[in-house]
Amino acid sequence: MRRLVYSVAASLDGFIAGPKGEYDWIRRDSGIDFAALYRRFDTLLMGRRTYDVAKTNPGLLTSMGMKIVVVSTTLDPALHAGVIVVSRNLPEAVAALKAEPGKDIWLFGGSVLFRSLLDLGMVDEVSVSVFPVMLGAGVPLLPKGARAQLKLNESKALPSGVLMLSYSVVGTRPSG
Amino acid sequence: MRRLVYSVAASLDGFIAGPKGEYDWIRRDSGIDFAALYRRFDTLLMGRRTYDVAKTNPGLLTSMGMKIVVVSTTLDPALHAGVIVVSRNLPEAVAALKAEPGKDIWLFGGSVLFRSLLDLGMVDEVSVSVFPVMLGAGVPLLPKGARAQLKLNESKALPSGVLMLSYSVVGTRPSG
Repeated sequence: MRRLVYSVAASLDGFIAGPKGEYDWIRRDSGIDFAALYRRFDTLLMGRRTYDVAKTNPGLLTSMGMKIVVVSTTLDPALHAGVIVVSRNLPEAVAALKAEPGKDIWLFGGSVLFRSLLDLGMVDEVSVSVFPVMLGAGVPLLPKGARAQLKLNESKALPSGVLMLSYSVVGTRPSG
Repeated sequence: MRRLVYSVAASLDGFIAGPKGEYDWIRRDSGIDFAALYRRFDTLLMGRRTYDVAKTNPGLLTSMGMKIVVVSTTLDPALHAGVIVVSRNLPEAVAALKAEPGKDIWLFGGSVLFRSLLDLGMVDEVSVSVFPVMLGAGVPLLPKGARAQLKLNESKALPSGVLMLSYSVVGTRPSG
């Protein structure tokens, strides 16, 4: 079964965007091998707000050449050609997607969808590019909720100071 | 001048303790070389609440064999032998401490004191042992405020999956 991978850039203090959604800290000269990253996946799974933001960058999603799956109860599939809309039965829809043949699935965001799928035990891997910055506030890597135990599989420091980390999700349990 | 180092254990999502102050996720079998860590410092600088918590672990602070400096407006020095209390003029007191001869200074916590000293431009280094867990909630590595740019100096993955990271603080600026 192909793996569902939450792959994001984050700050050392655990934010994936600034308080106003800023991503200026994600430096283009970071040395991240985006081509290799893209080659691993053939499907992008995302929430509706992430889709809306991605669409404001013309050609971004289509240039990635992947199947696009958007979780939304409001998006009209008739108005978004080339997009598969999941409007109900999230666990079943994601299970079916994972059971299809193909490459791994990129959980592209947002973090709220990550939290939902993590709590359902459906996220296999968390891959974080940690940029050398503390944002001090912003959109959390993981919204509030249960603790999740991880297993470090890979870590590599790029000359830019970006850390490429890859973890398997071992399990979740309520925290506190 | 000796360096002021914020050295803490954190989760991948940027918490240094759980929502109820839990630190059960800081595994004793992590493989961290505490003896080497301790050898680097001769002074512990901390806030009053961190001092109160540390004192509940009998012998912890004295066994570390370091000068203990507590920032507090309420602590009575007469009742805490062996402790230097900084009750006012924090920037001047810390500047004087850094100018003394000796080993580096361990900013032992809490994160509120870290935020104050970071904003004053007095923290030289951030050393984080990132444990393979996402806590989902808790005490943040850095309380809300300005962004801080870092420079990665060292990274090492231990067999336990703990990442030993060391950053220099490059600068701060208001975020958002």
